[in-house]
Amino acid sequence: MNVAIIGASGYTGLELIKLLLTHPKFNITYIANSTGEENVQDLHPCLKDVVNIDVSKANAKEVAKVADLAFLALPHKTSMFFAKELLELDVKVVDLSADYRLELDTYEEHYCPHEDKAHIKDSVYGLPEYYSEEIKNSKLVANPGCYPTATLLALLPFVDFIQEGSQIFIDAKSGVSGAGKKLSEVAHFVNLNENSHAYNPFKHRHMPEIQEKIKLVKNKEFQINFVPHLLPVTRGMLVSVYATLKDEIDVEKILEDTYVNNEFVRVRKTPVDLKMVAGTNFCDIFVARNGKALFINSSIDNLLRGASSQAVVNANIMCGFEENEGIPKIAYVP
Amino acid sequence: MNVAIIGASGYTGLELIKLLLTHPKFNITYIANSTGEENVQDLHPCLKDVVNIDVSKANAKEVAKVADLAFLALPHKTSMFFAKELLELDVKVVDLSADYRLELDTYEEHYCPHEDKAHIKDSVYGLPEYYSEEIKNSKLVANPGCYPTATLLALLPFVDFIQEGSQIFIDAKSGVSGAGKKLSEVAHFVNLNENSHAYNPFKHRHMPEIQEKIKLVKNKEFQINFVPHLLPVTRGMLVSVYATLKDEIDVEKILEDTYVNNEFVRVRKTPVDLKMVAGTNFCDIFVARNGKALFINSSIDNLLRGASSQAVVNANIMCGFEENEGIPKIAYVP
Amino acid sequence: MNVAIIGASGYTGLELIKLLLTHPKFNITYIANSTGEENVQDLHPCLKDVVNIDVSKANAKEVAKVADLAFLALPHKTSMFFAKELLELDVKVVDLSADYRLELDTYEEHYCPHEDKAHIKDSVYGLPEYYSEEIKNSKLVANPGCYPTATLLALLPFVDFIQEGSQIFIDAKSGVSGAGKKLSEVAHFVNLNENSHAYNPFKHRHMPEIQEKIKLVKNKEFQINFVPHLLPVTRGMLVSVYATLKDEIDVEKILEDTYVNNEFVRVRKTPVDLKMVAGTNFCDIFVARNGKALFINSSIDNLLRGASSQAVVNANIMCGFEENEGIPKIAYVP
Amino acid sequence: MNVAIIGASGYTGLELIKLLLTHPKFNITYIANSTGEENVQDLHPCLKDVVNIDVSKANAKEVAKVADLAFLALPHKTSMFFAKELLELDVKVVDLSADYRLELDTYEEHYCPHEDKAHIKDSVYGLPEYYSEEIKNSKLVANPGCYPTATLLALLPFVDFIQEGSQIFIDAKSGVSGAGKKLSEVAHFVNLNENSHAYNPFKHRHMPEIQEKIKLVKNKEFQINFVPHLLPVTRGMLVSVYATLKDEIDVEKILEDTYVNNEFVRVRKTPVDLKMVAGTNFCDIFVARNGKALFINSSIDNLLRGASSQAVVNANIMCGFEENEGIPKIAYVP
Repeated sequence: MNVAIIGASGYTGLELIKLLLTHPKFNITYIANSTGEENVQDLHPCLKDVVNIDVSKANAKEVAKVADLAFLALPHKTSMFFAKELLELDVKVVDLSADYRLELDTYEEHYCPHEDKAHIKDSVYGLPEYYSEEIKNSKLVANPGCYPTATLLALLPFVDFIQEGSQIFIDAKSGVSGAGKKLSEVAHFVNLNENSHAYNPFKHRHMPEIQEKIKLVKNKEFQINFVPHLLPVTRGMLVSVYATLKDEIDVEKILEDTYVNNEFVRVRKTPVDLKMVAGTNFCDIFVARNGKALFINSSIDNLLRGASSQAVVNANIMCGFEENEGIPKIAYVP
Repeated sequence: MNVAIIGASGYTGLELIKLLLTHPKFNITYIANSTGEENVQDLHPCLKDVVNIDVSKANAKEVAKVADLAFLALPHKTSMFFAKELLELDVKVVDLSADYRLELDTYEEHYCPHEDKAHIKDSVYGLPEYYSEEIKNSKLVANPGCYPTATLLALLPFVDFIQEGSQIFIDAKSGVSGAGKKLSEVAHFVNLNENSHAYNPFKHRHMPEIQEKIKLVKNKEFQINFVPHLLPVTRGMLVSVYATLKDEIDVEKILEDTYVNNEFVRVRKTPVDLKMVAGTNFCDIFVARNGKALFINSSIDNLLRGASSQAVVNANIMCGFEENEGIPKIAYVP
Repeated sequence: MNVAIIGASGYTGLELIKLLLTHPKFNITYIANSTGEENVQDLHPCLKDVVNIDVSKANAKEVAKVADLAFLALPHKTSMFFAKELLELDVKVVDLSADYRLELDTYEEHYCPHEDKAHIKDSVYGLPEYYSEEIKNSKLVANPGCYPTATLLALLPFVDFIQEGSQIFIDAKSGVSGAGKKLSEVAHFVNLNENSHAYNPFKHRHMPEIQEKIKLVKNKEFQINFVPHLLPVTRGMLVSVYATLKDEIDVEKILEDTYVNNEFVRVRKTPVDLKMVAGTNFCDIFVARNGKALFINSSIDNLLRGASSQAVVNANIMCGFEENEGIPKIAYVP
Repeated sequence: MNVAIIGASGYTGLELIKLLLTHPKFNITYIANSTGEENVQDLHPCLKDVVNIDVSKANAKEVAKVADLAFLALPHKTSMFFAKELLELDVKVVDLSADYRLELDTYEEHYCPHEDKAHIKDSVYGLPEYYSEEIKNSKLVANPGCYPTATLLALLPFVDFIQEGSQIFIDAKSGVSGAGKKLSEVAHFVNLNENSHAYNPFKHRHMPEIQEKIKLVKNKEFQINFVPHLLPVTRGMLVSVYATLKDEIDVEKILEDTYVNNEFVRVRKTPVDLKMVAGTNFCDIFVARNGKALFINSSIDNLLRGASSQAVVNANIMCGFEENEGIPKIAYVP
């Protein structure tokens, strides 16, 4: 199946290119960014002598001529304009931006006015462990944010057992590739090296995404208190969820039972780390209990499971392929 | 005043040597480790051409001949034997181990049988912001653990405002120098670099230390749920405390008011980080609230405020010097 | 074709497992280390839910029953005993140790007495760009050291143009995974983080390996002055060769012409770095000239091109497969 | 003595502030950058509660009213305008830029037209081990570049013994703080972390500085071939000099004898590293020989000995103080 990548310049765009180059079923026919006029080898010098495709200036009509499905790795707001046009041209879309992840009201409260109200209500939230049936029949999948992916996979199995009215705290730590390729103070080497800090406590836009999905999946309302941190590493994400249980239940069993049939979630007997999942689509999860106090601990590769490889899993499901086609389970990271 | 350092081989021993070398009132007359027979320049090559003192095999009677106060940077259990002998010889002691930090019962439950019951009940917990009066009159100060230092300074101002019966969660992150100089799997470069993970969740021995001190200082009982993590950095410690308030109070004001007269606690308007305090005795603290959900965020240099510089502050107070004599507030870390 | 991996516990053993798991022609039938009695998932937890093979206690006769070719990722001296026995049982061998890399005399001068004199003289040095014909017909390939791989690929094209009698200097920098999985002072996080230093200047055993191969390939004798350094990174190797040319020649052209037909050497127009080649079998090379002063600059992934992926390339050639079968050119490292 | 710091915003400006705050003889009366209008605590939040000085918009006449000596931590070209005006107002100057380091011709060839030809010929090159007499009597000291400091201290003792006409190669490695506080591609965390690479091979402007000073100090002409590299660390600089000796001489003795009376050069018996000198003004040097091949290996803290602490040493000498007044020999870096 022929696919396009729109937004090829950033980190998630590069990961998409790499994943799709070795994918047994997808064939890249179109790569675009906002300027065009380069070969992909010049855009990403690590691809020298590996692939030889020109980078176009993004144009939906051109996409529709050569591809059946498009991955959008664009900033929010930019993405909805392309998605809208592509969908009208009958091209399937996996959108890696925030534009179709939320209910319309939540989106407009936390982002900006939405310009594609026609499609947002039909979009499916692309967390395969919870939405695979809906993804199968969808033409528009909204790929989840990195923090919500790791948090929801950890938290959803336990939502029914958490004390009503109690606070849920999420202490999340991310590698700095999540902040993107654009130069920024937080990503200046001298600032982050030998350092770590929280940012936007209780104010990150992934907080309403997590809260909304808990309500939609479990029909429960909780106050989610989300505090993201930066780690002095390139990639990886570690999430610690803290909550109060109703009863002193067998939390290991609940976790095991929830994911027994999900090949990309691995339940661990010891705290998870970044390296076990780096370069793969796995989400590793560990759980521990201290009386009624609950600690759920998950880790993902923020650029893969938190973005590009989850996007390809979604595309696999949308196209009727096996979920794991071309999805990395091992990486060359010692 | 003449002082001795016993346990000079490790990271905290080295920091003590450096602090005391430039201290205006203390004069190092004795340095010891478990083997002796070296010059301190050979033990710590960074001190070449800086100081020229022989390292002795630790012997309390020799200490008593040349020093009025001794810093013990020894493993727990070893430390109590030296402390006991030194106190009987009328040498003041600042003990950096865990041996005198806890009530006898708590100690024996979490560590081992205590061999110096005579002195443990007179020891003072050396957290200067809360125990300075007691430290002034003490001959034996138990220097707090690094995690309890950062946690208690963050949490104590708010204990009276936290909902009774609610869970307090502490997500603490430490640089790996806290794991010591001894080779270990967790401190192997390949294992920690580009990585981060929790360890001993709910089982670290600093958990009862925190819980006990909250009870002693504030006369409140809370379940403290402590989850330490390792960061891929050498030094620094970042603590995130999560709790549930009774009411939606002005948390910034409470924090400001608590520490207005403490020169080594800085209240920050933005989340704290490791670099601001690296190489100093400062504890930086930030607080934020989301409804009744509370986030208190503190950072210290784990080897200085979390060990050696706090020990020297305690010695300053014990000897009637100014608290800040010879204590670093700036460091050559950009 | 069925293959065995002997020495599965270390970093190069793990890389071999990962490479061979996804290889289209090789099938792992046997994995061994010195103890046996585990599943490979327990030995390398990153492989959980990926592969399910028992780890045996290494035994050559068992290998011969189930495999046609064996990769030995063993310490030198241990390796020759296994290689000898395997070759006598008609199993092809790719040896990743130093045991068959050198002429007998050179080996015994720098390592130890050799216990398999029968085979050492028939072994082929597995640097595919220079020995592919010999590899094709060999039953025993000695996989080059990591430093010699990066150095020889950089230096060999220029040997004929270097002033006779002049000194050749090699300033090589390696990630610390090259020092292995065993705990060591140099690989202690606190020692290496924010640090870098030379080690064994002029005394590393890769120095005679480089010197000997220059003589064998180019029939020229030069004094090679090799100074390795450690970098505070996990993987990667950067080599800077400094030499004095006879004449002010076109060095870019020489480099381009040499490797025009070698798909795993990429000639770069700008200085090379570690990230471009991390996770791949590429060797990137850049060259610059200042009058007669020559700077050749190469980089490889020390565990892949410097060990395991080069070993699989050698096995491909020995078995008549395409050189690039199952060899990574892209990696999930941003 | 009252001093001013002009150019307080960058890394070397911050180091100057920290050094001068604790200096027993110098008193900061004026701090300026290009904008003014802030307190120094806002400019450098690590100084919160440590110092309370307003930052002015740089103005030479204001400096002359309140200070006898000024440190200029400004970009080249900007610096010469301030220096000229300050000197005419009879303020002594230590200039950390390149503006007065070179002979006029060399400067204009490698930088730009010089606007203060009156003073450049009287400036003294502030490498204290070689120019202390001239510094004593100077009103204008040009503080050396970081690479030239580490290289010249390593190389000068051996210049008389190097084969005439042979090439001298310098493989230098720097922490990225040397690239400054301004955001840049090379200093983006994702680009440098787990990476290392050469830059500007044979083209860095410190190359003519090194070459010129060798000629001026030793009256010898050599082709200096300088290749700088970036290391994934914040601070530190490691220099490896490679040269060819005339004879197989006792290089350790030459090095020892050269620096026997210099307290800020330490001769080491093993290869030097970054951590031993981090946070101090030391330059550590090691030397090794392989026949006639010479390896000299030096390390400094690039921001201190390579900039700010060397500037304060120069000011000490200019003002008749002890060279080591207020100069750090130990740092809180484990």
